[in-house]
Order: sequence, then structure tokens, then C-alpha cells
Amino acid sequence: MTIDITKLIEEFEFNRILNSDTQTKQIAILGTIDLENAILIIEKSPFNIELINSDPKSVPTKIISSLSLINSNDVYNWAKATLNQDLDQLPAAKVNLIYPATETHIRKYNQQKLHYVRETPEMYYQYVIPYIDTMKGERLKWVYNILFHGKEKESFIYHDESKDGFVLLPDMKWDKVNLENLYLCCIVNRMDIGSIRDLSGSDVIYLGNLQNTIQKVTHKKFGLPQDQLKIFVHYQPSYYHFHLHIVNVHHPGLGDGIAIGKAILVDDIIDNLKIDGEYYKKKTIGYVIGENHGLWSIEGYRNSVRSQ
Amino acid sequence: MTIDITKLIEEFEFNRILNSDTQTKQIAILGTIDLENAILIIEKSPFNIELINSDPKSVPTKIISSLSLINSNDVYNWAKATLNQDLDQLPAAKVNLIYPATETHIRKYNQQKLHYVRETPEMYYQYVIPYIDTMKGERLKWVYNILFHGKEKESFIYHDESKDGFVLLPDMKWDKVNLENLYLCCIVNRMDIGSIRDLSGSDVIYLGNLQNTIQKVTHKKFGLPQDQLKIFVHYQPSYYHFHLHIVNVHHPGLGDGIAIGKAILVDDIIDNLKIDGEYYKKKTIGYVIGENHGLWSIEGYRNSVRSQ
Repeated sequence: MTIDITKLIEEFEFNRILNSDTQTKQIAILGTIDLENAILIIEKSPFNIELINSDPKSVPTKIISSLSLINSNDVYNWAKATLNQDLDQLPAAKVNLIYPATETHIRKYNQQKLHYVRETPEMYYQYVIPYIDTMKGERLKWVYNILFHGKEKESFIYHDESKDGFVLLPDMKWDKVNLENLYLCCIVNRMDIGSIRDLSGSDVIYLGNLQNTIQKVTHKKFGLPQDQLKIFVHYQPSYYHFHLHIVNVHHPGLGDGIAIGKAILVDDIIDNLKIDGEYYKKKTIGYVIGENHGLWSIEGYRNSVRSQ
Repeated sequence: MTIDITKLIEEFEFNRILNSDTQTKQIAILGTIDLENAILIIEKSPFNIELINSDPKSVPTKIISSLSLINSNDVYNWAKATLNQDLDQLPAAKVNLIYPATETHIRKYNQQKLHYVRETPEMYYQYVIPYIDTMKGERLKWVYNILFHGKEKESFIYHDESKDGFVLLPDMKWDKVNLENLYLCCIVNRMDIGSIRDLSGSDVIYLGNLQNTIQKVTHKKFGLPQDQLKIFVHYQPSYYHFHLHIVNVHHPGLGDGIAIGKAILVDDIIDNLKIDGEYYKKKTIGYVIGENHGLWSIEGYRNSVRSQ
């Protein structure tokens, strides 16, 4: 059965705005269709460079439909404008409709309150380790499927099945087309590293080799030398099996994923472990966490943040 | 004389795309009007929340004009869409026209190539210190005007004129209205810190006091406790007189300014200096630098990056 998206949208009854991002020009709206929850996400489209380059003579009139001056000062002029659009060739937006939507979907799109947490080693041992234990097993099955059971094999960029080996594959966030937005993910075979907290001085050579191999493979496969890449991990990571993020330094919109308080350069991890092999076991690590995160549902964890 | 922006745009002859940001949906185009350089910047508008909330019953049909399904999978449906627009009430984009544009304008909007540089202490002593020397004196006069000559005094949030004191004031990037986007700048009175490279173990208490005072003042003045703030510095900084950045953790669009490879949490600086008082003198610091940066014009610096 094909979905009649136009009909569904017509039946969509507005409930509230879940999130509006003025930076990316995206909005997420909660509503109901036929009494069931639905989430409508509308994101404005980027400008189509290919279309511009294919017929440069018609720019900017092909882009801009009408203009109204707001103000002028010296050489600077501001105006508001309407743009040309065409559903087939020049759409103005991308629409996602999740229907029926679960509470988990709603939580995901609902703007959550964030906290900058200074996680002491004591907080880690008392609250984070037990939390991580609940995130292992079944929750990591999809990772083991990739590593050991050939899942997603067709998209592997590199695979070394040895003990210290890893899988390198395109991240879901990459369109696989624009090198400028290159985003790869490296998942290691080792099962004993849940996060940087598990790394110690004895892993310095392992991490160095890992990073070197990633750099070589990425250079050979995509022509991007190491000074065109940022290689980093997340703390807290989204899953507790060690993995690295590899992005082009020119990637324009990485948001929180590349921000301090979440991302940590592998170069820095190696340097710090060289200074003190127990660096990440002893360090109070600062990171930003949302109230939707599982850790935030632990009362003791929340209280230790509040008493900081 | 009022500018006829529509006429100017009609006369705009396309030369090349300077920059296209698929994240913020912005494009900068270089062209000529009447044989003089002109830069046209078009940025798509965010969704108008007030308009939605003022007439929620008409959502989403007031936003979306037409839809075409791309694909469906389980509860997920993707479509492309055209949107309703109105030059007066619901413009689709903001347009800036810089005309006539100078070479400096063009450089500013021209996408520059970036490099991830691992700056060794040797590179710092050989290339960066001499560069910093050229960035002092007259280049820092505006900073001294703020600190010691009452410039911008009307916007000060806090001012402590003692030796270890500082000025706290809104950053230019903040609209001074939305607390979610709060962005403050703290410029210290001390003249002996050009960058984190100049910090040592003897500055741990100074830095801790600095951060504590900023947190207290920001809490009192804006009601934002410390877990709502990220406090960090840049390396390389944009000017070589020690200053701190203070932002709300909810700030949506900070781009590279908050990214690893440029931003460093003050908490981490303090922790690292406690481990080794010479941490930032001995550390190889990784950061992203653009080819427009003054350091990149130094041949020896470039060569040492290329040989990494």
C-alpha cells in the first residue's frame, strides 16, 4: 500500500512544537492523525549548487523570486525575499513524518534541558558503571552483527579481523557523496573498552596504530591526508563499545557531536595517557548531558550534579 | 537616494560561488554589477514560531504548500515539499548584497581551506612566538581601551580593576535578549598571558578564582547556574591577550568556536596544569587553522605542517 502523504498531512492536527532550530532551519511538530501521535519534521533545503553551476547565467534571478529592501548602510544592503521553488526540481524543504509515533520518538525530538556535568571518578564508579552494565548485552547486538556476522559488509571501507583490528564504514550522518561532509565510523574488535574510562597507558601503542591505519586508509580511499581529518571519540558515547568518529575538517554542521564537552581528540587521549597511564581513570571529565539521557534518570547521579 | 535592490539583483552577473553552507542553508555568490564586484548572500529563513503559535489550527497546511513522497519504511515517511511564502509576512530568505565589494569582503566570504595542525613546542617557539609578537602593541589597543580606559563601559556586566581582576561583557555574537544564546566574554587585566601556552602550575588558583567569579556573577545576573554554562578558551585565539568565552550549554549554533581543535574547557586547563605545571608548554596542541590565518603565510610553519 502506498502512503498518501498529502492526505496524512491534511489530517495532521497540531499539538505543540517539539523543537525549532533557527540555525539549521528545522522544526519538529507533535500532532495527531486519526487520534494517534505523529511527528512532523520540516527542514529547509540547502541551495542546489549543481543547478546553479549548470546554468550560471540565470543566477540570481533563478533563485530569487521577489525582493523587499529592509535597510542600507554604505556598501551593505539587507532585504527579505521569496524564492523560486518547484516540487520536482527545486523543493524548498524535506519533510519527515513519523506516524504512529511512540513516546521514545517524541522524547528524541523534544528539546531537552542540558546540563554541564563534572563527572568525578567517584560518580563514574557509583553511577556510570552500573548504568553501562545495563547498556551491554542485547543493546550491543547490532555492533557485534557488524563486527563478527557480516552485517552491513557491503558498505565496509576497511576490515581487519585480527584482535586489534576494526571495521571502518561510512557513518549514517554522511551522504556518501560530498567529501567535504565525510563522516566515517571506526568500530574496534576489542570488547574490553566501553569508553575512554577503560583506556590506560598500555593502550597508547594500540591507539596510535589504530589512528595511523585509519589515516592511511582514508588517504588512500578518499584522497584526504591526515591534516584534513579530525579523529575523535565521544564521552559519554552513544553506545559502550569503543568506536571512533572520523570527519573532514571542512564539515560545516556537526553541532554538539564535535563540541567540547562531548568530543575528545584521539591525539589528546594518546598524549594524556603518555603523561599518566591512569589519566582517564583519575580525571574529572566535564560533559554536556541531556535530561533524556538514561544517566539523568538516576537520582543519585542527578543529586551529585546538583551539589557541584 | 534609496537603493533599488530588485534592479541591482537583476543586473548582478554571476561569477562564482564563494561559499555554500548546507547546514545553515546559506550561499555566498560573487558577481559583478556594472563591472564592479558584488557579493550576494542568501540565507533561508528559520520557521516563524510566533506565526505558528498564533494560529495553530492552520498548521501544517499553512506551512506546507505541496508534497511529494520519496519513500516510506515502517513508521517513517520522507517527502520533498514546497512551502508557502509571502514577501511581507512570510519571507523565505534573508538577502545581503555587498556592493561594491572589496578584496577583503571577498576573502571574508570565500571558503578557505582548513588544516588540522599538530603544533609541537618547537613549532610554537620557532614560528608562533614571533607571529604573536607582531600581533601585540597597536593590535591590542582596543583591548586596553576596554580594560583601562572605560571603552564599552556601559555594557560591562562586571568589572574588577585589581591586578587579578577582569571585565565581563556580552560578546558581539549575542543578541543580548535570548538567554538560550547567552555568549559572554571575559577579558583579564593580566598582561602576561598571550595564550594557554603562557599558563603554568602557578596559575591554577588564579584560573580557579577567575572561573568561580564568572560563574557567580553569571548566576546572579542571568539566573544561570554553573551547570548551564560552558567556559572555554580558544587556541589559536583571535587575539593574544588572555580572554575566556562563556556560553549557555543550550546555544544551538556555535560552529567551530566550540569545537575540539579550537575550544578548550577551562576545567580541563586547570586539571591538566595540576597534573603537570608545564602541561601547555610541553604539549603538542592540535587545532584547525584556515589558510587565511596569518600563521599559514609563514613558509616554515606550513612546511612543518606538511611534514607531519
